[in-house]
Amino acid sequence: MKELVLLRHGESQWNAENRFTGWADVPLSVRGRREAELAGRKLQESGFSCKAACTSLLLRAIHTQNIVLAVTGCAWVPVYKDWRLNEKHYGILQGRIKREVEQEMGEAQVFRWRRAYDCPPPPASAETLEAQEQDPRYAGLPSGQVPATESLKDTLVRVRSCWEELLRPLLFSREQLLVVAHGNSLRALLMYLRGLTPVEVEQLEIPTAQPLRFVFDDDMHLLSS
Amino acid sequence: MKELVLLRHGESQWNAENRFTGWADVPLSVRGRREAELAGRKLQESGFSCKAACTSLLLRAIHTQNIVLAVTGCAWVPVYKDWRLNEKHYGILQGRIKREVEQEMGEAQVFRWRRAYDCPPPPASAETLEAQEQDPRYAGLPSGQVPATESLKDTLVRVRSCWEELLRPLLFSREQLLVVAHGNSLRALLMYLRGLTPVEVEQLEIPTAQPLRFVFDDDMHLLSS
Repeated sequence: MKELVLLRHGESQWNAENRFTGWADVPLSVRGRREAELAGRKLQESGFSCKAACTSLLLRAIHTQNIVLAVTGCAWVPVYKDWRLNEKHYGILQGRIKREVEQEMGEAQVFRWRRAYDCPPPPASAETLEAQEQDPRYAGLPSGQVPATESLKDTLVRVRSCWEELLRPLLFSREQLLVVAHGNSLRALLMYLRGLTPVEVEQLEIPTAQPLRFVFDDDMHLLSS
Repeated sequence: MKELVLLRHGESQWNAENRFTGWADVPLSVRGRREAELAGRKLQESGFSCKAACTSLLLRAIHTQNIVLAVTGCAWVPVYKDWRLNEKHYGILQGRIKREVEQEMGEAQVFRWRRAYDCPPPPASAETLEAQEQDPRYAGLPSGQVPATESLKDTLVRVRSCWEELLRPLLFSREQLLVVAHGNSLRALLMYLRGLTPVEVEQLEIPTAQPLRFVFDDDMHLLSS
């Protein structure tokens, strides 16, 4: 038996302001930190004893994970940070207030950008891209692999490779794995693990800081979620 | 040029109570958290930009590191936690108040246990050892390798292997490395890096949360400290 817990980070400052975030590196709000503590307490009460933890390269996920590991007495576990667990890149929308974009572009278009499987927002500005390329956290990526925007389909490609190369082997060997990531990188992972269709995944929304538990058998077949 | 920063954790609750700690897993005091923040600000002002970080399996070092990485904007760097950076094991003294032990055993004896190169305290109780053996963080160690007590000489053996196998290769590849550890594991590392004698190391004390900076050339020769 192997146990996987997926957790979306607590509320960030831009979640609170209802802004598109994506790869912008925004810290948790005060409420987000409290949500993370509560998630930690829930996990501890449920008897989950983490043996390894993975997260994205973004502050809101890393801090959520640090808080959860501290609350559950698991601060000592090995931690892996991987860009492939980052939120979906929101292109030119990053930093913009959702309601303003809805007024400009229409609610249906914004819904498609947020939820549809194959609908990337327009790419980020050259300025944003240059800053990303110079960010030392992405220095290890092959040139051109830092995205300018992403659909959920694009996000799924990297999340799937992260599952196969990092998460799955870790879950197999360590048996109790915590993954703290983002609304859309977790939607992509769930789509892959549960074989959801593009239509099904459109309806899927992941709440902040609510642990989602998956049990696998020793041959890594998903038993329950 | 490669840059190594060594940092002893901030004050722990048992530092504040003047108790022997060793492998007992005691959290930071409020003052210790403030010290860690201050160390982070100092590092940031000095222009240190961390590319990887290592710490022990003990809370007070892990939390100090989390605080320093958050303050310096380096929360995203890869982090490695290794038991070989743990504090020297203080055997039966762990948890005891230093002044009481001095009254019982004499100041000279306590000084030798704390500072001498080759003077391990009496081993921990069978109860403490059993709890250590069952602690999942030490489950990966070969049976019998979890110590019952240690001299600085014993600590040096494991710290040296950690330097050769983990820290040195990381410093070489990532170029700016932060190591957050403990009074005696850092004394052992300094002894090794600077070729100190047992007599010289007796005089060496590492203050809490004061960053110590070392510069190596590209062939990993120590240039300055």
